[in-house]
Amino acid sequence: MTRIISESPITGNKHNLPETHGDNSLLRFTSAHKDKSIVAVQGLGFVGTVMSLVIANSDAGEYAVIGVDQATVDSYWKIAEINFGVCPIFSSDPLVSEFFENTKRQENFYATYDSLAFSYADVIIVDINLDVTKVKNEHGNIESYDVPLVGFKKAIDSIGKVCKEDALILVETTVPPGTCKKVVYPILVENMKSRGLATNSFKLGHSYERVMPGPNYVNSIKNFYRVYSGINEESADAVEKFLKTVISTDEYPLTRLKTTESTEMAKVLENSYRAMNISFAIEWSRFAENAGVDLYEVVDAIRLRPTHANLMYPGIGVGGYCLTKDPLMASWASEEFFGLESGLQSSVKAVENNDKMPMFCFDFVSNILKHHDKKITNIGLLGVAYGPGIGDTRSSPVEDFYNRLSSCFDNIKCQDPYVPLWAELNLEVETSLEAFLANSFDILILTTGHRDYLYNDAIYDLISRSSKEMIIIDTVGLLDLHKLPTHFSQNKNFYVLGVGHNEE
Amino acid sequence: MTRIISESPITGNKHNLPETHGDNSLLRFTSAHKDKSIVAVQGLGFVGTVMSLVIANSDAGEYAVIGVDQATVDSYWKIAEINFGVCPIFSSDPLVSEFFENTKRQENFYATYDSLAFSYADVIIVDINLDVTKVKNEHGNIESYDVPLVGFKKAIDSIGKVCKEDALILVETTVPPGTCKKVVYPILVENMKSRGLATNSFKLGHSYERVMPGPNYVNSIKNFYRVYSGINEESADAVEKFLKTVISTDEYPLTRLKTTESTEMAKVLENSYRAMNISFAIEWSRFAENAGVDLYEVVDAIRLRPTHANLMYPGIGVGGYCLTKDPLMASWASEEFFGLESGLQSSVKAVENNDKMPMFCFDFVSNILKHHDKKITNIGLLGVAYGPGIGDTRSSPVEDFYNRLSSCFDNIKCQDPYVPLWAELNLEVETSLEAFLANSFDILILTTGHRDYLYNDAIYDLISRSSKEMIIIDTVGLLDLHKLPTHFSQNKNFYVLGVGHNEE
Repeated sequence: MTRIISESPITGNKHNLPETHGDNSLLRFTSAHKDKSIVAVQGLGFVGTVMSLVIANSDAGEYAVIGVDQATVDSYWKIAEINFGVCPIFSSDPLVSEFFENTKRQENFYATYDSLAFSYADVIIVDINLDVTKVKNEHGNIESYDVPLVGFKKAIDSIGKVCKEDALILVETTVPPGTCKKVVYPILVENMKSRGLATNSFKLGHSYERVMPGPNYVNSIKNFYRVYSGINEESADAVEKFLKTVISTDEYPLTRLKTTESTEMAKVLENSYRAMNISFAIEWSRFAENAGVDLYEVVDAIRLRPTHANLMYPGIGVGGYCLTKDPLMASWASEEFFGLESGLQSSVKAVENNDKMPMFCFDFVSNILKHHDKKITNIGLLGVAYGPGIGDTRSSPVEDFYNRLSSCFDNIKCQDPYVPLWAELNLEVETSLEAFLANSFDILILTTGHRDYLYNDAIYDLISRSSKEMIIIDTVGLLDLHKLPTHFSQNKNFYVLGVGHNEE
Repeated sequence: MTRIISESPITGNKHNLPETHGDNSLLRFTSAHKDKSIVAVQGLGFVGTVMSLVIANSDAGEYAVIGVDQATVDSYWKIAEINFGVCPIFSSDPLVSEFFENTKRQENFYATYDSLAFSYADVIIVDINLDVTKVKNEHGNIESYDVPLVGFKKAIDSIGKVCKEDALILVETTVPPGTCKKVVYPILVENMKSRGLATNSFKLGHSYERVMPGPNYVNSIKNFYRVYSGINEESADAVEKFLKTVISTDEYPLTRLKTTESTEMAKVLENSYRAMNISFAIEWSRFAENAGVDLYEVVDAIRLRPTHANLMYPGIGVGGYCLTKDPLMASWASEEFFGLESGLQSSVKAVENNDKMPMFCFDFVSNILKHHDKKITNIGLLGVAYGPGIGDTRSSPVEDFYNRLSSCFDNIKCQDPYVPLWAELNLEVETSLEAFLANSFDILILTTGHRDYLYNDAIYDLISRSSKEMIIIDTVGLLDLHKLPTHFSQNKNFYVLGVGHNEE
């Protein structure tokens, strides 16, 4: 049985997958925008969609944008919704829908599954995903990992087959350093050759965004520093010229690096650094818990030093699309493309540590419950997104934690203001905090550091109306013991991950 | 044959070790300062000496300071020189000698080997060294490490034997978290008991400096944030009261943590974080070199992000007294004192990586020489201190590098503006850059990032007068290719560690 419906997890709208391979409306859109430069964005994910909106909303108003994605069950709904006038992104940033509404008025954003779109484009931006596969043993140690490039190569090939001879192809996908030169460039050259076109006319560049899909989603693309490069001088110039028309480069000047390897490396290095810093905090959390130390106050004290201001707090772990894979991608490239023996061991170790964090967190919770003579019937989780202020559940550490918990307990309910449906688990999530806390939970576990909890004193009222027997476990250091009802006390019915039991 | 002379590596003055165990002048000094609080500082090392000066120069002028160290060949010269009116520290910070001259005028700083000094003190500051021993295999991997506490315990015991019943003992030594409560406190209580004194009158606290023995040596103690704690409320209060009289706490407020374990942990966590960040840069240096990437421009590009502003540049490695041992000390404590299985693996790995750096650096140099058909007769090293602007060669990465180099080449000369004598190798070092570069070197290797090289355009003049055949290898990213004579070109006769050869 083949499924032929693609359903939006946001609106619930159902769309039939298209039966033909050609999109007749494409020509209508491009003909209507003959006076404009056409930009095709390959991949309508968390980056591609908002990048499309930013380009379509460029101050000069010079672009018509075509978003291209696949006509699959997972992706087609985005194409259909965009053309139907519905923003395919649910965000706490009001600029996302504002920008989307603008494109509707200007009619300069169209979406399609038809790769013929690339033939109309002056600029093609590659924003597709490139995943890393990991194999782990039963202890959670990473035994091997790989970056399968087949899908990525096919996507580049679909561009090379039809693109203009002098198109600018700008790769924004996070790729193993070396990919533009060793993978993308040869595919494009091969296609140009077989199409009888010049092989030195197209421009190929690399630049990466630093998108944060939270309350500053749009600005994290439009108003932030960018690093870019080209496979040659003309390519780098072309990238620069283009980015200057869509990014606020006066305020956030562009940085040109010498080679595409350099910018590709910069991206994965940035994220590996962050993954490493998180992994560091995780290791010291265990130490603090054992030593009866409050790691939060230690980190606060150290952060006063400007050189240590980015020291991380303890937490349930790392999620999202980047930090969980980029260090592996880098290590893979160092071995596969550049013969570095044994890769980037510490960066791989950081991912391994971070991936284990939900397991540690589960152990932390289990240990607490072991010391309580309490029958656990109802558990509530506050937050399922991978980070504060976002509705993104990809690789959320809460998923692993939830799975471990649900193997021991039956009745686990979840709340998240940004996630009405937890797609990975196909689980309904309560968005109202009030409705959620009206449940009588035996244990309430804070699992995402949403500001909606932190800056919302209502949470303390709601908790005070709950059962006096409730245990609260804060895995993200959000609640203030002093604001909790007085019957809560540290290490009795209120526990914080990374904060040890301080008693001799 | 027993040596009985202790020689100052700074002045060359020779001092006979004292024959008796009692210091008769001690009483004279303490009697002269009956109106003042007496502070004894145990350990006249890089911290203790300058801490003594800062206390003796407190704005209120209320303290007489006794520095206590051992009457050994290695240490006695400090005692003798201080009492002789010679500052035992050679520093680029003019405040060091200014503060020392003040104490001579005020006659409020005295040094002794006699632990009876502690009996006069209202405040006793513990600034002795506590070392970590490492055992490595032939690949440089750390097989085991230990923190032998025998000497430290003896030192605390020498305080407990004579100190006032209500003395404040403030530990500043970097110790394994848990040491104040599990080691220091029991020793003091035991002594008080056997002396028939109250066991709850003395105060015991922990606070750590963040000393940087460079151009801001004094200010890194006097004008910087401090974290402190006490084994109980009264102890913490006493530490606070004391620190407020010697540190500029108005500008740099103190931070009190809940337990001595917390501050002990904060100190080693801070340094482990830094060691980790350096280890990260080292791993990526190898990758950059292999991928033909200039890691400096990549790091510069990333540092624009405020959250990544402390990303480290490549380099020859980590030295100094702290970063090379503190992560191990932390890991040791996590296992020995708090039963954390397998310790802090990533932090240990960071030390291991960093320790290997001079080896990588040597490999980098060897590889370059392999590709040059050049007979190497003379090698010049610029910088032997472990870091910029300091004369400290303890655990300098240049030492390991030098040793490796000298096993292959005979004629290696060293220059360092701050190190007239390289104590660890008993090697004379040229302090004049001009005299040094008058040598005709085949290879010149920059090994310490002294500002004297960076902000001194004379270095380019001197280089231009040298042999045209000279190869320059910059392991600390200091020289600007564009300022070098034109016959130098990247990857031909000018090489930078962390910068790859960019050619297909």
